[in-house]
Amino acid sequence: MELSDFTNALEKILLGTARKIMLTPGERERTAYHESGHALLGMLQPAGDPVRKISIIPRGRALGATFQSPESDRYGFEAGYLRGRIIGALGGRAAEEIVYNEITTGAESDLEQVTRIARQMVGRWGMSEAVGPVSVLPGPLDEPLLFPGVGDRSSERTRELVDSEVRRIVDECYNQALAQLRTHRDQLEALAHALLEHETLDELDAYRFAGLAPPEQLALRPAARTAART
Amino acid sequence: MELSDFTNALEKILLGTARKIMLTPGERERTAYHESGHALLGMLQPAGDPVRKISIIPRGRALGATFQSPESDRYGFEAGYLRGRIIGALGGRAAEEIVYNEITTGAESDLEQVTRIARQMVGRWGMSEAVGPVSVLPGPLDEPLLFPGVGDRSSERTRELVDSEVRRIVDECYNQALAQLRTHRDQLEALAHALLEHETLDELDAYRFAGLAPPEQLALRPAARTAART
Amino acid sequence: MELSDFTNALEKILLGTARKIMLTPGERERTAYHESGHALLGMLQPAGDPVRKISIIPRGRALGATFQSPESDRYGFEAGYLRGRIIGALGGRAAEEIVYNEITTGAESDLEQVTRIARQMVGRWGMSEAVGPVSVLPGPLDEPLLFPGVGDRSSERTRELVDSEVRRIVDECYNQALAQLRTHRDQLEALAHALLEHETLDELDAYRFAGLAPPEQLALRPAARTAART
Amino acid sequence: MELSDFTNALEKILLGTARKIMLTPGERERTAYHESGHALLGMLQPAGDPVRKISIIPRGRALGATFQSPESDRYGFEAGYLRGRIIGALGGRAAEEIVYNEITTGAESDLEQVTRIARQMVGRWGMSEAVGPVSVLPGPLDEPLLFPGVGDRSSERTRELVDSEVRRIVDECYNQALAQLRTHRDQLEALAHALLEHETLDELDAYRFAGLAPPEQLALRPAARTAART
Amino acid sequence: MELSDFTNALEKILLGTARKIMLTPGERERTAYHESGHALLGMLQPAGDPVRKISIIPRGRALGATFQSPESDRYGFEAGYLRGRIIGALGGRAAEEIVYNEITTGAESDLEQVTRIARQMVGRWGMSEAVGPVSVLPGPLDEPLLFPGVGDRSSERTRELVDSEVRRIVDECYNQALAQLRTHRDQLEALAHALLEHETLDELDAYRFAGLAPPEQLALRPAARTAART
Amino acid sequence: MELSDFTNALEKILLGTARKIMLTPGERERTAYHESGHALLGMLQPAGDPVRKISIIPRGRALGATFQSPESDRYGFEAGYLRGRIIGALGGRAAEEIVYNEITTGAESDLEQVTRIARQMVGRWGMSEAVGPVSVLPGPLDEPLLFPGVGDRSSERTRELVDSEVRRIVDECYNQALAQLRTHRDQLEALAHALLEHETLDELDAYRFAGLAPPEQLALRPAARTAART
Repeated sequence: MELSDFTNALEKILLGTARKIMLTPGERERTAYHESGHALLGMLQPAGDPVRKISIIPRGRALGATFQSPESDRYGFEAGYLRGRIIGALGGRAAEEIVYNEITTGAESDLEQVTRIARQMVGRWGMSEAVGPVSVLPGPLDEPLLFPGVGDRSSERTRELVDSEVRRIVDECYNQALAQLRTHRDQLEALAHALLEHETLDELDAYRFAGLAPPEQLALRPAARTAART
Repeated sequence: MELSDFTNALEKILLGTARKIMLTPGERERTAYHESGHALLGMLQPAGDPVRKISIIPRGRALGATFQSPESDRYGFEAGYLRGRIIGALGGRAAEEIVYNEITTGAESDLEQVTRIARQMVGRWGMSEAVGPVSVLPGPLDEPLLFPGVGDRSSERTRELVDSEVRRIVDECYNQALAQLRTHRDQLEALAHALLEHETLDELDAYRFAGLAPPEQLALRPAARTAART
Repeated sequence: MELSDFTNALEKILLGTARKIMLTPGERERTAYHESGHALLGMLQPAGDPVRKISIIPRGRALGATFQSPESDRYGFEAGYLRGRIIGALGGRAAEEIVYNEITTGAESDLEQVTRIARQMVGRWGMSEAVGPVSVLPGPLDEPLLFPGVGDRSSERTRELVDSEVRRIVDECYNQALAQLRTHRDQLEALAHALLEHETLDELDAYRFAGLAPPEQLALRPAARTAART
Repeated sequence: MELSDFTNALEKILLGTARKIMLTPGERERTAYHESGHALLGMLQPAGDPVRKISIIPRGRALGATFQSPESDRYGFEAGYLRGRIIGALGGRAAEEIVYNEITTGAESDLEQVTRIARQMVGRWGMSEAVGPVSVLPGPLDEPLLFPGVGDRSSERTRELVDSEVRRIVDECYNQALAQLRTHRDQLEALAHALLEHETLDELDAYRFAGLAPPEQLALRPAARTAART
Repeated sequence: MELSDFTNALEKILLGTARKIMLTPGERERTAYHESGHALLGMLQPAGDPVRKISIIPRGRALGATFQSPESDRYGFEAGYLRGRIIGALGGRAAEEIVYNEITTGAESDLEQVTRIARQMVGRWGMSEAVGPVSVLPGPLDEPLLFPGVGDRSSERTRELVDSEVRRIVDECYNQALAQLRTHRDQLEALAHALLEHETLDELDAYRFAGLAPPEQLALRPAARTAART
Repeated sequence: MELSDFTNALEKILLGTARKIMLTPGERERTAYHESGHALLGMLQPAGDPVRKISIIPRGRALGATFQSPESDRYGFEAGYLRGRIIGALGGRAAEEIVYNEITTGAESDLEQVTRIARQMVGRWGMSEAVGPVSVLPGPLDEPLLFPGVGDRSSERTRELVDSEVRRIVDECYNQALAQLRTHRDQLEALAHALLEHETLDELDAYRFAGLAPPEQLALRPAARTAART
């Protein structure tokens, strides 16, 4: 079995079989820009995981997908890496805003993912100076009455602080996403057009169409992370 | 089976069989203006779905209905389109206010729908600048203690912000609904009178009586959305 | 079966059989004024449903009852009509305050009904300008986590607004109830004395003793609404 | 069976059989003052129910008891009558404060009863001008999500208002209880000493030792209300 | 069976059998001061229950214990007596602070007991002037929706008042505990050293080593209350 | 069985068998600094438990581990000892910040532990002057409605106070952790390099490589506490 067979099989498991649905040309184009936004920002983050594949073939609930995965398993993530992931996840929405000057519902799951990462940075991983190195979110095993040690029963002021820190991080990342896409607008266009033509781009093509050098290849063990667009 | 048979069958499934109830002439007239308000505003929104049918024959709990459906399945909605849907859904109440200068309980489900859309625009789809591109409503799968990533335990300040943004969007849309109906008062009257005479208007008649050009026809696959009036 | 048989049967179903309890003369008199307050205000509201019967024969938990029902089934209620119902429901308490200058526990269920109507006017039917045309009460089918569209998780500020609007509406209606009963004090006395003498007054007698013209009779289909007094 | 047999049987049902426990002389004296405070204030309220019996024989959890019951069944209570009941229920504590200048845990259930009455006056019976004629406590049948009409989800400001009105009513009543007992200190002493001597006082003796005229006797149907002291 | 047999049996039931655990000399000394703090303050409170036994033999989860019990069953407690109990319960911690100038986790259950008493003084027994003679804690039988009479749904302001009154009472008592132990430091030392030498002190020895006259003996019915130290 | 066999067996029970996972050199180095931070600070706290073993062999979910255990069982902990444990638990994160100037998700469970200890210091063990010697966290057995004595229904102000005291304690400890590691940077480097070379360091080696005198040996009963790093 060749590697491409393997990744194809993996894709099916992760996203379901390709689905025959009829997108309007406008929707197909918007999907191409949305995925290109994810992919281009994914490629541009210094510490980001390599982009493995981009596709605008609808699968399951998603109209398109961008795969990224690290060269090898990772244990522990730096704050900078997590910001890069937030920037990448906001890339779909940022591309739509830049290209169409209009926002759609298509980024719903991106925003959920982004918020989830940012809330954990602030409330569980001590990555906000304003909140400090304390845990203020209840943990998975927190039984509030039995072990009220951590985030349960946080005061309103703490919840407000978490909300505003989450907002700050996401806003900063979104501004970076917009700025980077504007700086690399030509590459966004090139990638989107390539995607509209080829529907699916493999790793090397993705970097090539974006005019970027692919990351040095190490062991290629594909553990996929998807930034799907419904 | 002709298309009209199909849409008739669909209507029964969606709204139940026509119900023999005795409306007073006043209630019948108010229903006609209410549905005409929905329909006329539905037709007037630039990006809106075509109006397929208007009816003041009581069905199930509803005294009348306005059907709108897109030319083809849609995947992802722009903020502008959603505002148009809010405007249309408020059209029944706006028509009653303009014509009778009195508000009734008949718009209860319209207001629920309107609030639901606006809350998701603000809290799930990132369409309010004040709230930003974060998710602040719990998602369908959010198990608050296990995955506290998103909207769970939002601070009071965030909830206040969501409420006031929802209010702002709905107010803006309601003012637009009132303004558009006042501008097109003659067309509202024409549509309501046609409805009182014919009880049910098909797509072409609806646009004709409203004095508007029907949208260009594409594939006619009726997926109905109802703005029912109880 | 004559109509009176029918309404008698209906009364038994709605209020239970007449109960043999021994009221003191004072309690009987207070009940007469309480029911007369409901009935007279019911008759005086311009858009109100006709008063069908008044009684001070204890039934079930109630010491007396005032029946009102529309000429025919109604679908949708105007804000003005709902205010009239609040005024009528407050009539029992208002009469006690005017006649005895003392308030009793007897209006408990009236106040519940009044609050329920006012809260829905404000939070579900968009009848408060301060709250606007949004739904801020959870609907009967609202599953907060699955469909957080509407009233769930309203902010404290919104709840405060709802409370103060409810208070405003009820206060305005109560002041109107007091003012109307004071203006029509003679009619209140006449009605109460007739009730003490006859125990039960039918529609025509009720209007006659109150010195008011009965509403024009249309189809007489009795669907009873009760303002009971425990 | 004589009436005294009847009331004795009733006492057993209501309070349990007399219990052989050994009170210290100090505890017995305090109980006598506590019950005398209840009884004397009960006798002094203009609209109060007659005092039927006072006892310092421990029964069940109670060290003593004061029975009051109306001449006949009552339906609906005036605000003034309810204030009188609060004053009487606070009489035990007020007597202890006046006589011993010390407060004990013995009034726990009195305070619960007092708070319960005051909260319903304010939140259910419309007897506070500050809260107005609205229901702000959830009713026994209120299913918050299905019928959010009444007190559910009251705003914090409303809850604060209820708390402060409850506090105001109870404070006013307690001050009246203290003032009346101070004015009638001799009668309090007489009653307490009679109680220490006789252990149980029937209606006529109770009024006689307190130097008060008994209320005119009407039908004597004893429905007991207890102000027990643990 | 002699009395000492009886109290030994009672001890086993209450605290479990003596446990063979190896305390360091430092821990054993700290335990001796902790129990001596409880015991000495227990002896010094004017209205306090006599101290029956002190022990630093570990039993169950406790490293030591101080028994106090009244001369006879008591019914109702004065506010002053309850303050005395709080002072005694804080005596262990106060002794540790005075002797070692360091606080340990060993007073956890003392603080729970202290808080529990103070909260009930404030919220259930009307012993705080700031809160007044009202019940603001839910009672054991309070079913909030059915009987919302008492402490359920207290406003935030009331909860704040309860918290600050609890804090005031406990602070006042703790300052008294510190002051009394400082005044009687020699007696604390004497008691702790006696305890280190004898491990268990009976009533007469306890008072003798503390240099205090034992309370006059009345009926000796031991109902134990423990101030255990883990 | 030699002691080392015993501790090896214990390790397996506590952390699971060593796991064969492939860390990148960077991750392995970061783990070494993280564990060295825990260990060095553990050794430096005056009242701390001796460090028994340090390891960067992944086990279960942990990439490394530092074992500390007291010379003998302890009963009751001083506030100073608890602060030392917080400092030690923050040592992993502090080392990463000093060495890499970047924070990672690897300290998640450290922060949970730190917060848990600090919250109990403040809310259960009376170790915050601002909160005082009261219990403000619900205990494990607190059934809020039945025994509302302690931390249940704490006011918002109290929760805010707890949060800010927790924050203060953790911040102070973190600053100490940073300061101590900066002062002992050479020792941190030495320990980390030794760990990278040997993978596991026993007690004597750990102290020797850190250039510190091992604590005097008493009975060596290993009860392990781990500061694992995932």
